[in-house]
Amino acid sequence: METTAAAIDETRSALPSAGRTVWLTGLPSAGKTTLAHAFADRLREEGVPVEVLDGDVLREALGRGLGFSREDREENVRRIGFVAELLSRNGVTTVCAVISPYRSTRDELRARHEGRFVEVWVATPSAVCAERDVKGLYAKQRAGEISHLTGVDDPYEAPEAAELVLHTQDRSVEECVEALWLTLNS
Amino acid sequence: METTAAAIDETRSALPSAGRTVWLTGLPSAGKTTLAHAFADRLREEGVPVEVLDGDVLREALGRGLGFSREDREENVRRIGFVAELLSRNGVTTVCAVISPYRSTRDELRARHEGRFVEVWVATPSAVCAERDVKGLYAKQRAGEISHLTGVDDPYEAPEAAELVLHTQDRSVEECVEALWLTLNS
Repeated sequence: METTAAAIDETRSALPSAGRTVWLTGLPSAGKTTLAHAFADRLREEGVPVEVLDGDVLREALGRGLGFSREDREENVRRIGFVAELLSRNGVTTVCAVISPYRSTRDELRARHEGRFVEVWVATPSAVCAERDVKGLYAKQRAGEISHLTGVDDPYEAPEAAELVLHTQDRSVEECVEALWLTLNS
Repeated sequence: METTAAAIDETRSALPSAGRTVWLTGLPSAGKTTLAHAFADRLREEGVPVEVLDGDVLREALGRGLGFSREDREENVRRIGFVAELLSRNGVTTVCAVISPYRSTRDELRARHEGRFVEVWVATPSAVCAERDVKGLYAKQRAGEISHLTGVDDPYEAPEAAELVLHTQDRSVEECVEALWLTLNS
């Protein structure tokens, strides 16, 4: 009987009382997607139900026809936030990797989440992002092939009260994942 | 000890092993939204995690800018299906009330759901829908104020192999909910 009770308690402690939306915001090539998947793997190992909503994937799934004006970027972020809200209120921890450059849109999502929103600023400096340039966007911008690149010729409004700030240029992915885990459980 | 074991079994039997997407398709004013909410209430009473995705609400949340061409309707349906897929694969039974007039789009969603898709044809006849006319759309179409009304001057392709067909003109909401419940548990 004690064994059963202990097993139940253990199961309970491994599950959050409600899911959270962990919102990774930052410049292109800051490391958001990499961290989102690494953190999701860690959560799965711990038995936490989890989904990753990646900005690029979600723009394809929910944002066809949207461009990169302020209005369209905000609409894209709101749609992803809407889905995250549905998932997290059903106990699924939802890790979002989305540039989401505007503070007011992120604050709007936070308000809608009623305490379940964890904002994480992936604060990799612009110069480091431009060097990583995972998708070749910085090179294209320099060559004049694209414009409106967030942090270069389009605004990025850094969070002022994020639950966590990650300086990925000084930390390993594992260290960042540990910091995310501690933040979610603090 | 037996009490504890019984309680655990009871909890288990009340929870589905995985969530399902219950997709209510049919003409405007067929009764999809009413049935979706009544069925969701029943599921909640039974302890099943549930969300309702209503076509009108979701068009506002995810479909701004989409119109009523075939292409845009399909895109709207795909977006709702995408969200339903995320929720249902996390154990949330997701009841969708969406006109979804094209068979091929519904079949596409079914294929993506890998066995978790339950198609329900809310088969209220056009004349009955036009008489109910909850949103005044049939009157507006007759008055020439709108066009492309599904089932009147826009196509509706009825399901050929729905898991359930509901003739709401001959049945009470309670009877329809019971039929939905039995279908989900068969």
